[in-house]
Amino acid sequence: MKHLSSQPYKGTRDYYPKEKRLQNYIFETWRRVVERYGYEEYGAPILEPLELYAAKSGQELVNEQTYAFTDRGGREVSIRPEMTPSVSRMVAARRQELPYPARLYSIANFMRYERPQRGREREFWQLNVDIFGVDGIQADIEIITILDAILKEFGAQSGDYIVKINSRTFIRYMMTQYLGLNEENALQMTKVFDRRNKLSEEQFESQVRALLNDSADYEKVTAIVNTTSVETLPEELQGVESLQEIHAIFTALQRLGVTDIVFDATLMRGLDYYTGTVFEVADTHPDNNRSLFGGGRYDGLVGLFGAEPISAVGVAPGNTMIEHFLEVHGLLPEDVSKTDLYVTPIGDSEEVAFGAQQLAAALRKDGLNVEVDISGRKLDKQIKAAEKKKIEHVLFVGLDDIAAAEYPVKNIVTGEETRLTPGDVAGRFRRP
Amino acid sequence: MKHLSSQPYKGTRDYYPKEKRLQNYIFETWRRVVERYGYEEYGAPILEPLELYAAKSGQELVNEQTYAFTDRGGREVSIRPEMTPSVSRMVAARRQELPYPARLYSIANFMRYERPQRGREREFWQLNVDIFGVDGIQADIEIITILDAILKEFGAQSGDYIVKINSRTFIRYMMTQYLGLNEENALQMTKVFDRRNKLSEEQFESQVRALLNDSADYEKVTAIVNTTSVETLPEELQGVESLQEIHAIFTALQRLGVTDIVFDATLMRGLDYYTGTVFEVADTHPDNNRSLFGGGRYDGLVGLFGAEPISAVGVAPGNTMIEHFLEVHGLLPEDVSKTDLYVTPIGDSEEVAFGAQQLAAALRKDGLNVEVDISGRKLDKQIKAAEKKKIEHVLFVGLDDIAAAEYPVKNIVTGEETRLTPGDVAGRFRRP
Repeated sequence: MKHLSSQPYKGTRDYYPKEKRLQNYIFETWRRVVERYGYEEYGAPILEPLELYAAKSGQELVNEQTYAFTDRGGREVSIRPEMTPSVSRMVAARRQELPYPARLYSIANFMRYERPQRGREREFWQLNVDIFGVDGIQADIEIITILDAILKEFGAQSGDYIVKINSRTFIRYMMTQYLGLNEENALQMTKVFDRRNKLSEEQFESQVRALLNDSADYEKVTAIVNTTSVETLPEELQGVESLQEIHAIFTALQRLGVTDIVFDATLMRGLDYYTGTVFEVADTHPDNNRSLFGGGRYDGLVGLFGAEPISAVGVAPGNTMIEHFLEVHGLLPEDVSKTDLYVTPIGDSEEVAFGAQQLAAALRKDGLNVEVDISGRKLDKQIKAAEKKKIEHVLFVGLDDIAAAEYPVKNIVTGEETRLTPGDVAGRFRRP
Repeated sequence: MKHLSSQPYKGTRDYYPKEKRLQNYIFETWRRVVERYGYEEYGAPILEPLELYAAKSGQELVNEQTYAFTDRGGREVSIRPEMTPSVSRMVAARRQELPYPARLYSIANFMRYERPQRGREREFWQLNVDIFGVDGIQADIEIITILDAILKEFGAQSGDYIVKINSRTFIRYMMTQYLGLNEENALQMTKVFDRRNKLSEEQFESQVRALLNDSADYEKVTAIVNTTSVETLPEELQGVESLQEIHAIFTALQRLGVTDIVFDATLMRGLDYYTGTVFEVADTHPDNNRSLFGGGRYDGLVGLFGAEPISAVGVAPGNTMIEHFLEVHGLLPEDVSKTDLYVTPIGDSEEVAFGAQQLAAALRKDGLNVEVDISGRKLDKQIKAAEKKKIEHVLFVGLDDIAAAEYPVKNIVTGEETRLTPGDVAGRFRRP
């Protein structure tokens, strides 16, 4: 008989307890931060109608990366490749009842058919943090503050990362008004901007020049793409409303202590639905010099569902990107078991087995996490199992110990051993 | 332009914050109980090769209920309809390295193409608790103890539910040895047993008689299917090893305080992979008189992946079934926000807005969950939002309050109002 493969589906990961503990640490950190800002958790289905993405998520995502198929009832569906369309759909469905500002978050998995590589998996997990119903820049400021707070909660220091900020409204103004490009050339120019990091300086220059009405405008472009601060942009642009908005965002962020921020006119973000501010966090570590995650304002999405439009700003960090960030910056947490005590019965008499179970039951009532070895193996094998499970303390149960109601407890890391009553054990090992 | 539908995919649910809070309550309760028994969390991909289920999950599930499709690379895949094959695959892949007994749990979503009805959704969530590597009944006892502990942790009382227990080994013995049926008739007979609740007494009798070698054996059958205790089974069966095993399981469970248990020879559980003990929890409430969830021993599954077989016992409660159980028994938790304080700026001056943000930042540093209203609306609208969000306390920030460093805080449920310094606020509203 042919054996089944024990490998996971290509581009996906199995999370064994050790890997899951790290993932949970990331999830819990995300959760703690966003709940501090009053965000409420929601959940959406893993499957959505394909048309949900066709509208605004961009052609590459829909045509090449979705896990799309026809269900048994003939419906065109897709495993969700991102959360923004789902949460917009949910907000549209309850537009009237929801309290605003609606602050929503989710931690969920997604699938995209991409070539698997470091930091890019076909199944990945994301935190999605979105605020709905705020037209003003307060929303943009809050979401950027939160992404900064998340990185700091993981232990990141100033300088470990940089938040790039841009405005699609400003870029649109720049392309069509300032440079006077027609629609098609404006679109092409944003694509050249977007690819800037992948182009040599010469390539960038020649591609830009080819799209300009007047080749002399090239200096206008370099003045914009080479600055990291809105204040050093050309004088003649300073009066533009969308630029004043970004300026106000920078000022407010700095005042709130969010200082690792730069202006980057070449930041575009791929998705079609962004309408205003866009931002992206980059790792500054030489071994992981890459974009980690991003977000932006997407005021048009809720309106696609037939509801009145509702303003929205969101950001979505992914777990693998965070994992690599923690790795290169030496911020990975210590890997410890959540189990407080490993109870090992000595010998295989029924009375010892039952005594061990009774003791474990009493300790669990006191709030301890207690695992009992029920393998009937020799003591050294039982202790080996506790070690592998990263459990620090082993409690031995022999017939004599049951009679004395006092048990030897050993710290298998330090070797220290003491005899304790069940009450002592509860007091000593109860988690804070 | 045609609008997109704001409805979720058929048979799936959107979880808005209120529904998500209930789901989280269920998830956290599950998690707390299984971690008390030392179970470690794992995660598996949402997508698996279809052949993983073809082997042992039963024809109905595979042919009619899977969300199966061909991926862009030509692989036959399925959204997972259950977890047991995935966790067995994972154990097989690391058979040598894992510490045994391996106690594993996951909380994850699944999809099955079924006709949606109360308590049965196309996307559903399950806790999967499995113990690997224990051949003896200690594992069966532990898993049944845990499912009992879960129901009690939700506040269930003795009598609210009943755990039905049976043994496939015993049933096989009964069919082939005790009743002397050939393979085909033995299989048909288990199906009649399985359908017993859906048949009238006459139908059951005639279908059973039709399969018996000797119609007089019918009394043998009724003696077995009508008892709820192994002790009252016919004398001549008492010596059978598999029956003695169930007997020992009952004795041990009772000794450990798990008393809402009955023997039920007609309990079969649908899945093909069960090899020994099977069990199922039924709600005893007249408004929800149904099977809630179940599990059993499946010693053959890990071996399908080319590894040495490893014994396994598991159980898998689902969230919707638990929700209905809590509902009918009046055990639903109170719905409260996780946000401690709603900060409402008075007026729309920039200084007040900034003061509110600064205060919120300080309180968050102290561990409070604080939401700031940034809508710029009138005060009554801001308070309305807090009410809708189920946040009990509102803190007002006016220019004078900032100057005095003392803020009015109102309990919007009781109407009680006090003035507090930031330090007071932190002390009073920090969660335990």
